[in-house]
Amino acid sequence: MKISVLGTGNVGRFLAAKIAHAGHAVVVGTRDPGRTLARADTSPTGAPPLADWHAGHRNIPLVTLAEAGGHGELIVNATAGAGSLAALHAAGPHDGKIIMDVANPLDFSAGFPPSLSVCNTDSLAEQIQREFPAARVVKTLNTMNHVLMTDPGRLPGPHNVFVAGEDAAAKATVSGLLQQFGWPEQDILDLGGIASARGMEMYLPLWLDLMRSLGSWDFNIRIVRPEP
Amino acid sequence: MKISVLGTGNVGRFLAAKIAHAGHAVVVGTRDPGRTLARADTSPTGAPPLADWHAGHRNIPLVTLAEAGGHGELIVNATAGAGSLAALHAAGPHDGKIIMDVANPLDFSAGFPPSLSVCNTDSLAEQIQREFPAARVVKTLNTMNHVLMTDPGRLPGPHNVFVAGEDAAAKATVSGLLQQFGWPEQDILDLGGIASARGMEMYLPLWLDLMRSLGSWDFNIRIVRPEP
Repeated sequence: MKISVLGTGNVGRFLAAKIAHAGHAVVVGTRDPGRTLARADTSPTGAPPLADWHAGHRNIPLVTLAEAGGHGELIVNATAGAGSLAALHAAGPHDGKIIMDVANPLDFSAGFPPSLSVCNTDSLAEQIQREFPAARVVKTLNTMNHVLMTDPGRLPGPHNVFVAGEDAAAKATVSGLLQQFGWPEQDILDLGGIASARGMEMYLPLWLDLMRSLGSWDFNIRIVRPEP
Repeated sequence: MKISVLGTGNVGRFLAAKIAHAGHAVVVGTRDPGRTLARADTSPTGAPPLADWHAGHRNIPLVTLAEAGGHGELIVNATAGAGSLAALHAAGPHDGKIIMDVANPLDFSAGFPPSLSVCNTDSLAEQIQREFPAARVVKTLNTMNHVLMTDPGRLPGPHNVFVAGEDAAAKATVSGLLQQFGWPEQDILDLGGIASARGMEMYLPLWLDLMRSLGSWDFNIRIVRPEP
């Protein structure tokens, strides 16, 4: 499948590398590839310079957002939540395409911990779906650290990833991609329509508190049910 | 310990029964005990008439909110979130006492699923702490169904309950009570100060979506970490 990853942070890099490894034709889209490659500083979230990463992933073209939009049948939104709609517009129109939204609407304007820029009666994924009504938005993977997204086996025993969206076929495609990432099918929980992205995004404050109290981002949640 | 449970719904009943079983002097406080006992209907959340429950728990006095406030060294807020501040005021002032807040600020005014009446940059537990600055508020148990609160062993293997609050001694007392409910000490995770109640309360929309997709309220989450 032709897949475009929007965003050059740690999330975009890990997803693009895994998608390429799984045999898909993947490109990474960013506003200004030349300027982004020229930056020599580490990002605020600790990502090393993109050029260092790209040197090890020459098989993954770094292209403009418009070029990424033209390439992908499936568009991965791995941009920061605050810039997601603008980036998706630059890559649009996305008609008929799947937008796999893994972003969180984190608002760092008041420092750390961030609040959410949208929540409770709306969500980033719903905003994206409204903005691109002919696209098929699937929310997933936003409830964990980027390393875990593509390496679920690093944690012992089962743990869960969620999907939410209106289009069953789009969710099946995303679920197939998650399985290529290493997620067992039975650990992928379908939470229903795109409004379920609210709960997935509103989990972030708990995730941040857990990260602080555990002293690590290397965790996920398992849904525990009674023995059958 | 002298403990007062505010609220006569399923949560209040299950907690009061378990607290009595653990040997504490527990009362249940409600606005109008006579009127509440006289009600013959099932509550909107499916709780049978209180008189039926009370017939099986004669050892637990049903008292006014003011009497409950006078009795307890530890006050359990098991009222509906929308009525919590009013109920706590009627039972106040709570100076020096522990308020164990298990409520969720669910807003059903637009139907089901509910939204939260407070979230993101504030929480019900923080509202309670601000309203009663001389009380020691501890948020806990709000992330699961009432049956599981006092019977964690019904699920296989470890799963987690959270505590948040400013006062370490109050959190230790609440943790001791949770252990009497059957929670292993190592499964009780301290998330930090009372602001961490935001994440615990904002988890509710995800919990509601999980309940709908699993078709059951009988589940909880386990924090999964790498093998040491």
